[in-house]
Amino acid sequence: MLFSNTKRPRSSTIFKNTFSSVLQMKKVVVIGGGTGNFTVLSGLKKHNLDLSAIVSMADDGGSTGILRDELGVLPPGDVRQCLVALSDSSRLMRSLMNYRFETGGLEGHSFGNLLLSALEKVTGSFDRAVEEMGRIMAIKGKVIPVTTNKVHLKMILHNNKVLEGEHEIDVSAEIDKGFKSIYLEPFPEANSRAIDQIMTADLVILSPGDLYTSLIPNLLVDGVSKSLRETGAKKALVVNLVNKRGQTSQFKVSDYLRELKRFIGRDIFDFVVVNNSKVPEELIQLYEQEGDPVVNDLKNDSRVIMVDLLSSEVVQSQKVDTLKRSLLRHDSQKLAHELMNIVNNL
Amino acid sequence: MLFSNTKRPRSSTIFKNTFSSVLQMKKVVVIGGGTGNFTVLSGLKKHNLDLSAIVSMADDGGSTGILRDELGVLPPGDVRQCLVALSDSSRLMRSLMNYRFETGGLEGHSFGNLLLSALEKVTGSFDRAVEEMGRIMAIKGKVIPVTTNKVHLKMILHNNKVLEGEHEIDVSAEIDKGFKSIYLEPFPEANSRAIDQIMTADLVILSPGDLYTSLIPNLLVDGVSKSLRETGAKKALVVNLVNKRGQTSQFKVSDYLRELKRFIGRDIFDFVVVNNSKVPEELIQLYEQEGDPVVNDLKNDSRVIMVDLLSSEVVQSQKVDTLKRSLLRHDSQKLAHELMNIVNNL
Repeated sequence: MLFSNTKRPRSSTIFKNTFSSVLQMKKVVVIGGGTGNFTVLSGLKKHNLDLSAIVSMADDGGSTGILRDELGVLPPGDVRQCLVALSDSSRLMRSLMNYRFETGGLEGHSFGNLLLSALEKVTGSFDRAVEEMGRIMAIKGKVIPVTTNKVHLKMILHNNKVLEGEHEIDVSAEIDKGFKSIYLEPFPEANSRAIDQIMTADLVILSPGDLYTSLIPNLLVDGVSKSLRETGAKKALVVNLVNKRGQTSQFKVSDYLRELKRFIGRDIFDFVVVNNSKVPEELIQLYEQEGDPVVNDLKNDSRVIMVDLLSSEVVQSQKVDTLKRSLLRHDSQKLAHELMNIVNNL
Repeated sequence: MLFSNTKRPRSSTIFKNTFSSVLQMKKVVVIGGGTGNFTVLSGLKKHNLDLSAIVSMADDGGSTGILRDELGVLPPGDVRQCLVALSDSSRLMRSLMNYRFETGGLEGHSFGNLLLSALEKVTGSFDRAVEEMGRIMAIKGKVIPVTTNKVHLKMILHNNKVLEGEHEIDVSAEIDKGFKSIYLEPFPEANSRAIDQIMTADLVILSPGDLYTSLIPNLLVDGVSKSLRETGAKKALVVNLVNKRGQTSQFKVSDYLRELKRFIGRDIFDFVVVNNSKVPEELIQLYEQEGDPVVNDLKNDSRVIMVDLLSSEVVQSQKVDTLKRSLLRHDSQKLAHELMNIVNNL
């Protein structure tokens, strides 16, 4: 045969290899907000997985809030972070997407947010905009908005005070005194692709992140909690390192599980991934205003995986605020390593 | 030989073909502002040419002016138009780059301008930003800012009134009463790549466009006029269809040549491309406020090529302003056809 002496494989071989590698690839779905999903996805991207991210669509603060108000677009910020995490494009492209204008009328807008909003305007569809931006950024995997309805998060506190919008809830320090309800308005339909991904996954991961403003807004979308209860996928929760003062103050691991169960309707988790590395005293002090480290009270629960997940990277920054956020955080590589241990044993 | 029965050419053949086609490609340099260059480049892009665009950097109106003032960037607008003209990317990508935000703090900004400005911020270099955006947009050819110094166009009128900035000059209707000087401040160095392109070109084309705000700002950059006098390239001028009221009112073809000679130092043109198709009476009336059609007073000059260059495309638009601009203009395909006649006879 013509090609028999060459090293070029026959097309049937190529097909078989590709086909079997797709068959072998485990399907992992990550659910959360922008920052937590970013951490989980950045690490998992380097592994051979069929990866998708389902993203909260309730953000209305900062650049995203201004774009929602002024242009009437869907919130780009959290989606942008997931796209950057999954991007295989150049470092320049990723820096560009996270670049924030510093002065004038554009101040505070990240370029990637503007790209998503302009794409939504030009294509007439946020879903299509996300797909096109994924192509521009050569992403590995899929990014799926949990809903494409325009929603706002609302919370009614025990004293009947109404918090309007994710940003108001995000900055509130009265939530730990109790709340009557949290809901999305208007009540949104799930993106059918999000439900499909959950129902056909091997593993669903709930990312770390603010409980009421990053995680739960996904669970409030019609059909999401139900699909989490019904899917045959295993479910893993990556527990936060630090509580949020005034919201989840003094929460232990069991409190996170209890609170998520209220919204999902059942304790669904097969794996609970918890950092066991001691947070250095100086960081605890630095974080005192933000909140206390999450204590693990489930040491004998077989679902709990305790490992060192702390990032040791020290990020130089001029801004104290950024410095604090940068120091005490999950190490995306260590986290991915643990999550891959789970995946490989499914 | 292994591949002798296949249709696959040997690599040496591929190399020879590519090499000789590069050798045969004529090198064409187009000089002007955003809109005129766009018309010339859009047509020429479809032909087999080594094409580059040299672009004025004096714009300070509209979205470009705001970005210059607020971000301290170089003017993106004219460069963006050239990149879109040369782009081989999808229609969606080109629409995206020309998309203008319509509301809020982003109102009036075209997305492509924001991309160029963000790239300039992230890379620290406007030249590099143009190169990267060219890559993103898969352009055919090169786009070269005539200078990368931050300049402002100034004009001193006969009555000693000083017009500051390209935009003020653009909207002035007193220029045809005479002016003492027009200059760029501070006096800028040419981009060495622009000079190289002019010196090694087969044909240099001056695009149509506003004389004092699109064409001449290129000639005011140190070294550009000299290189136009000294290059071995042939030179062609594409004459405007309509004069600009209060600036080039009642200009005939010879007036354009005279005025350009003042700045270049010599009448350099080997070809003067003039529309000979009669402008319909209703368009003349529609354009009355803007200016009168340019009359050709050089019918016996052998350098003058008279052909139909009028666009017959009727663009639907809600805005009268856009409608007017869209109706009376060069047809980029007809223009490219005439310019290719010149190129093929070089």
